[in-house]
Amino acid sequence: MIKPNVQLLLTGNELMTGDIVDSNSAMVAQKLKELGLEVSRKVTIADDLALLVHEINHLAEHADILIINGGLGPTIDDLTAQALAKATGVELAEHPKALEHLTIWCKKRGAKLNTPNLKQTILPKNCSIIPNNQGSAVGFKVRHLNCDIYCTPGVPSELKVMLTEQIAPDIAKDLPNELISDVTRLQVFGLGESTLQKMVNEQLPDWPENIELGFRAGMPLLEVKLTTTSQEAHNQKHFWQEKLLKVLGDHLIAQINNKPLPLASHVLSKLADENLKITTAESCTGGQIASMITQVAGASTFFEAGFVTYSNDMKKKLLGVSEQLLSKHGAVSQEVVIAMAQGALESSSADLAIAVSGIAGPDGGCDEKPVGTVWLAWGSKENLKSICLLMPLPRPYFQKYVASIGLDLIRRELINSQEIPYYVVERQRK
Amino acid sequence: MIKPNVQLLLTGNELMTGDIVDSNSAMVAQKLKELGLEVSRKVTIADDLALLVHEINHLAEHADILIINGGLGPTIDDLTAQALAKATGVELAEHPKALEHLTIWCKKRGAKLNTPNLKQTILPKNCSIIPNNQGSAVGFKVRHLNCDIYCTPGVPSELKVMLTEQIAPDIAKDLPNELISDVTRLQVFGLGESTLQKMVNEQLPDWPENIELGFRAGMPLLEVKLTTTSQEAHNQKHFWQEKLLKVLGDHLIAQINNKPLPLASHVLSKLADENLKITTAESCTGGQIASMITQVAGASTFFEAGFVTYSNDMKKKLLGVSEQLLSKHGAVSQEVVIAMAQGALESSSADLAIAVSGIAGPDGGCDEKPVGTVWLAWGSKENLKSICLLMPLPRPYFQKYVASIGLDLIRRELINSQEIPYYVVERQRK
Repeated sequence: MIKPNVQLLLTGNELMTGDIVDSNSAMVAQKLKELGLEVSRKVTIADDLALLVHEINHLAEHADILIINGGLGPTIDDLTAQALAKATGVELAEHPKALEHLTIWCKKRGAKLNTPNLKQTILPKNCSIIPNNQGSAVGFKVRHLNCDIYCTPGVPSELKVMLTEQIAPDIAKDLPNELISDVTRLQVFGLGESTLQKMVNEQLPDWPENIELGFRAGMPLLEVKLTTTSQEAHNQKHFWQEKLLKVLGDHLIAQINNKPLPLASHVLSKLADENLKITTAESCTGGQIASMITQVAGASTFFEAGFVTYSNDMKKKLLGVSEQLLSKHGAVSQEVVIAMAQGALESSSADLAIAVSGIAGPDGGCDEKPVGTVWLAWGSKENLKSICLLMPLPRPYFQKYVASIGLDLIRRELINSQEIPYYVVERQRK
Repeated sequence: MIKPNVQLLLTGNELMTGDIVDSNSAMVAQKLKELGLEVSRKVTIADDLALLVHEINHLAEHADILIINGGLGPTIDDLTAQALAKATGVELAEHPKALEHLTIWCKKRGAKLNTPNLKQTILPKNCSIIPNNQGSAVGFKVRHLNCDIYCTPGVPSELKVMLTEQIAPDIAKDLPNELISDVTRLQVFGLGESTLQKMVNEQLPDWPENIELGFRAGMPLLEVKLTTTSQEAHNQKHFWQEKLLKVLGDHLIAQINNKPLPLASHVLSKLADENLKITTAESCTGGQIASMITQVAGASTFFEAGFVTYSNDMKKKLLGVSEQLLSKHGAVSQEVVIAMAQGALESSSADLAIAVSGIAGPDGGCDEKPVGTVWLAWGSKENLKSICLLMPLPRPYFQKYVASIGLDLIRRELINSQEIPYYVVERQRK
């Protein structure tokens, strides 16, 4: 069997007007790549029935597989089902499976099934349903002009699950084995794409061409991918992966087996191993560390309280930081951030604390302490460490990156890391 | 003159593999929108000469204007000039103006003109040059099958200047004045796309076709767009916009003039008007409300402290909630959430508080209080209101939505809203 020709049709006025930037097609391409397939053509058009019908026919004529993304929603500008019915010459009808899905979906959310929602159950008569565990609209598949057409939802989180759990396996079952590629994914914190590429170039100059090294930058975690598409490369992979792991050191958070977990999940599972509790004392991150921790289900076992002390008064009142320390050293200082950590440990009876005080900007900096200056303290009552970094980033990135560094420093403490993280090497204020 | 049909062709392997996300087409669309034009179709293909030639002919046949982006660089996978020559049936030749540009460009940078660079001067014989002030590759324009084809560089900063300074004015000179479109954007909280569509269908059944009503679902805010592209529609717009605003009521957060602001920004600017401070007492949202508030620059004027009290012990210790209330009513109760708000007001000396206690799940629910049950209390010491909602959503959505509702309830308090929000009508636990 030869490699199927895969094409992609994206629909939506908002994609044409430039109001949103399309990230779905990258997701589709990456998922297909894991099957050894590429997208040969990608077409984007507005929500217009005549254009859609014309384009579906044109693409289906040239492709073996056509993935259509978007246009499954409840509003009148969602036209995919209608266009498919028209292009394939079948009628639209209420699909019992789609109705069942939508009824359960609404019930779970305590929401009423309304007329716009019901539109999502009206599908081309000959289609087969693709389940959607994330949203109200099911996907569907039809065959037209010798082409398998998969219709998928535009919401990225819904598309992702549908691609992984339904569509990729469905496509894969007709593919010859040798096309399937083998992918290892690693989660890394504290190294950027270009830094890591440079480290590999310098430390592993003989990296073999047939083990593709790919990166997906995320905030705060970087995903590193090793892809092989031949048996020969696969045989070498273990050897080179071990070398790469040495380069990564404790910047490696985990190998991703299924769904990537957030940084806080990894911290919590290490707290669970040691049966420890954690607390937070946040100034410039304003609750973001607490929020990252409590986004993990089951966080209550390891986290009882967090303090957001934005003003000096509250640092005194809630965390017992002395007026003397504040007036002598300022709120952004080693002395104060340590006192914040101690106060939080005291009040919460937790075993470990993360405390943060810094200048998120855009205002509030001075020559001695410019915007981006941040003190972190972390550890236990008996063993509190502290550090000052300079991270002159836009406010939202500053807060997210500093909160993540706080979590990472605790993670490194919990694994007894002796390494100096790259962000300290690069960002430490001397 | 009728509106020209504009199409867009993007080239590049990296766009097909998903290694980079295309932002150029959004830039092109926005620039064209200023001229009252839309892109009717956008096609992306890999760097393959045969595919390119085929696609150029296909698009030029249907379009009045075709913008080609990418493939002007010095490497062998840059094929745009070659493809254009082949599609239009003319020869390639060194273009004196392109050579002149490149010579000056290299000289300015103290660089030598090398062979790969010289490739950028070999263009279809009949083309006219589009200057590039930012990079080494000039753009060029050819006419083919009654279509104006503009070839542009893939580097976003180069494309941007070329679009603004050269291509938009070139297209505009042939356009009638009345084409320019007019867009109004509104931020809405608490109404979903399908709910709002239903409300418009029912309450404004005569909504005119030439005022396009569009939605962009965001979390937590929905963006509503009114677009007109004719003078006649524009004249009617004010009338219909006023009607829509009545339907939206206090679900309207703001009209977007420039960049949309987050919900917390709107709350803070209303706090500023009244010179009030706010505090938070969070259980199930775990710091997310505090984090949303402190993500806004300047939040420190209105927010001194937030409490994340995840355990009962900490609700007692930090917020003074009595053991009696907790054991009698449970942590997720009206009595406790009010006591949390009172405790936070007391400790922080703020004027207003938001307190939240609920069951985020996936575990911890029971028959009487299923997962998704949440109590909110909000207001001032003298005027604390409370409500119980049922929101059985996945944990991350639950936390974000509940945190946003907390902010919205305070916003409604600050504007003295007398309306019952739709989320209360739909979600209130009786």
